[in-house]
Amino acid sequence: MNTNREARTEKRERVALPLSVDLPNRHRHVRHRLTELGLDGLIVTNPTNVRYLSNHVGTAGTLVLTRSGVHLLVDFRYQESARATQASPGACPDLRIWPVPASYDEALVHVLAEVGGSTMGIEAAHLTVARMEWLERTLASRGLAVALRSTERVVEQVRLVKSSTEIEMLREACGRLGDVAGAAFAAVRVGITEREVAGVIEEAIRRAGYDRLAFDTIVASGPNSALPHHRSGSRKLSAGDLVVLDFGGVLDGYCCDLTRTVSVGAPAPDARRLHAAVREAQQAASEAVKPGVQATTIDAAARRLLESRGLGDAFGHGTGHGLGLDVHEEPRVGPPRGDSPGVQLEPGMVFTIEPGAYLPGMGGVRVEDDVLVTDTGCEVLTSVPRELLALP
Amino acid sequence: MNTNREARTEKRERVALPLSVDLPNRHRHVRHRLTELGLDGLIVTNPTNVRYLSNHVGTAGTLVLTRSGVHLLVDFRYQESARATQASPGACPDLRIWPVPASYDEALVHVLAEVGGSTMGIEAAHLTVARMEWLERTLASRGLAVALRSTERVVEQVRLVKSSTEIEMLREACGRLGDVAGAAFAAVRVGITEREVAGVIEEAIRRAGYDRLAFDTIVASGPNSALPHHRSGSRKLSAGDLVVLDFGGVLDGYCCDLTRTVSVGAPAPDARRLHAAVREAQQAASEAVKPGVQATTIDAAARRLLESRGLGDAFGHGTGHGLGLDVHEEPRVGPPRGDSPGVQLEPGMVFTIEPGAYLPGMGGVRVEDDVLVTDTGCEVLTSVPRELLALP
Repeated sequence: MNTNREARTEKRERVALPLSVDLPNRHRHVRHRLTELGLDGLIVTNPTNVRYLSNHVGTAGTLVLTRSGVHLLVDFRYQESARATQASPGACPDLRIWPVPASYDEALVHVLAEVGGSTMGIEAAHLTVARMEWLERTLASRGLAVALRSTERVVEQVRLVKSSTEIEMLREACGRLGDVAGAAFAAVRVGITEREVAGVIEEAIRRAGYDRLAFDTIVASGPNSALPHHRSGSRKLSAGDLVVLDFGGVLDGYCCDLTRTVSVGAPAPDARRLHAAVREAQQAASEAVKPGVQATTIDAAARRLLESRGLGDAFGHGTGHGLGLDVHEEPRVGPPRGDSPGVQLEPGMVFTIEPGAYLPGMGGVRVEDDVLVTDTGCEVLTSVPRELLALP
Repeated sequence: MNTNREARTEKRERVALPLSVDLPNRHRHVRHRLTELGLDGLIVTNPTNVRYLSNHVGTAGTLVLTRSGVHLLVDFRYQESARATQASPGACPDLRIWPVPASYDEALVHVLAEVGGSTMGIEAAHLTVARMEWLERTLASRGLAVALRSTERVVEQVRLVKSSTEIEMLREACGRLGDVAGAAFAAVRVGITEREVAGVIEEAIRRAGYDRLAFDTIVASGPNSALPHHRSGSRKLSAGDLVVLDFGGVLDGYCCDLTRTVSVGAPAPDARRLHAAVREAQQAASEAVKPGVQATTIDAAARRLLESRGLGDAFGHGTGHGLGLDVHEEPRVGPPRGDSPGVQLEPGMVFTIEPGAYLPGMGGVRVEDDVLVTDTGCEVLTSVPRELLALP
């Protein structure tokens, strides 16, 4: 085990370092899109997009990408780490660090006065009405002729297709879930509480070398398994329960996400049928994955299967979501939405496939894997047994 | 230990249940403010505010508070739990649950058409430009004469002063940090990694019965202790290190937050002096707390002390932040900010006092407690030794 872990750690270091090679490409793609939109630059306020474009990690930080420059605004808390990143192999080319003495928006106005063009994009989905109103008011009151224009999904569309470095990292993150699932399965028994099982899972996530949890672990047992977003509580597992185990980790910033549903002891015939239907829906969805197909088609494949088993109404959420620096990102793998542009799958996209069926009172099942779109179909990145395990 | 834990669990149940008694008061306060602002209602999109006004817990959910009604919009994932809350002693009076079949904003337009007044407030700090633009466009295109007006801090100002139920819960949450700190102190030794210490802390947080971590645990050792927002990494603790331990838990939704700085083995004289200065700054800030004082005054007390020790530049963050359903909420306890309205302390406010001093290369110190403003001064809710412990 230990040797194994060290080999992995070494691999991880190797994977993490060359990330800065991706940055010029990312900047080029975003600038290309800005030119199409007639913008002189983009004010990036989505923290994940800030990281994607600069390798700067922090809960705060604003980035201004212009035609020729990359300007990172960081407050006191992050200046040391930003400088350390710039002195590392992960340095962002052409980056200029601007200190934020007090307010980010005040500093942003200052940077826009120095380097901003006349028409700058904002990330409309990641800027609040309050900040936008303040910025427009302040720019005008200082006589700065900078117009702000809403944009959507500029960086997100670039993030949709992963680079080979990112894919290697996601593959590694998903691969390590095997050990975590093993620990989870070993913990399931009559009398243990949901929260205790979650504790075992989270300890295993840490032991596997992840930076942190990708999200709060879900352990939903018995009637709770019918609540798709139950977290974990003080309920004790009892014989015949279905138990939904949903967890994930973040490795060097990249997220993975796995769900398995197990049975405490022998499952009832109903539970077995429910699980088989979800498993088949998941299989149907995976088989539908290939380049050129709409993401909505993957959802339709799972949904059709569940409908054919009379479980259409029991499946109330989407089939999956993209994975990358965010645990929920594009592509959305769900039913078509009126005004939301669909995503056509391309090689390098990574997302979850996680249909479920929830019968209030009886229980629920969800089975989730992470897949990569390849040139010809899909590679399943998570490899943990999918059948309904009767535990212990 | 076990008996103790069960006694606590029992207390916890007892504390959690009467929460719905607070709801009518909260609604009354918010409606009073809406009347002052000339608004017919408020569209609540800050998830914490949704919870505060309805007891509904979820990552999604929009609430519309009108003069006479409380309308909760929830998607499939949360309908079961919302109904369960309504069937519990935590039920929200006058609540109507509206299902969200697909998009929240689509459902919101529908609810506004049914129950909205002619002028509705939005939470400008919790609604994105993208959503606002879509809502305004859609309301107009459907011929609905609903004007949306930006508001700020309407619910936050009500949340500032805690009810007796909330205070009891915060007192309990803070009290349990003693066991967690004990576990953390016991883990500190030469050769253990920051991440392993964080693991011990997080396991202790779970064991103490908290719902979840309040934030990612910080274990910053040696040179990392000079990075105020370092999380925890693979660095091994070594003799003479200062180690900043910053952690917190959430109990029935309410957050607590504690920082202690310890020394691995005997501290160097410099480290001892740095710690003493921060400790005195913290004491000075605590002594300044009483009703009627501006929150900025508390910050000034800590800052003045550190400046007098030549550490003014080493203290680059604010002195504290409010605690409640959010781990960072009002009041901000920091230096005055140009256009930000100051908060005058009132009995029932709860916040952290956490001055720090960070010397790049040498190390850093932060000491943090949670305090409640009382009629005459302050009650410190966290009781863990504050001196510089030399561990093990």
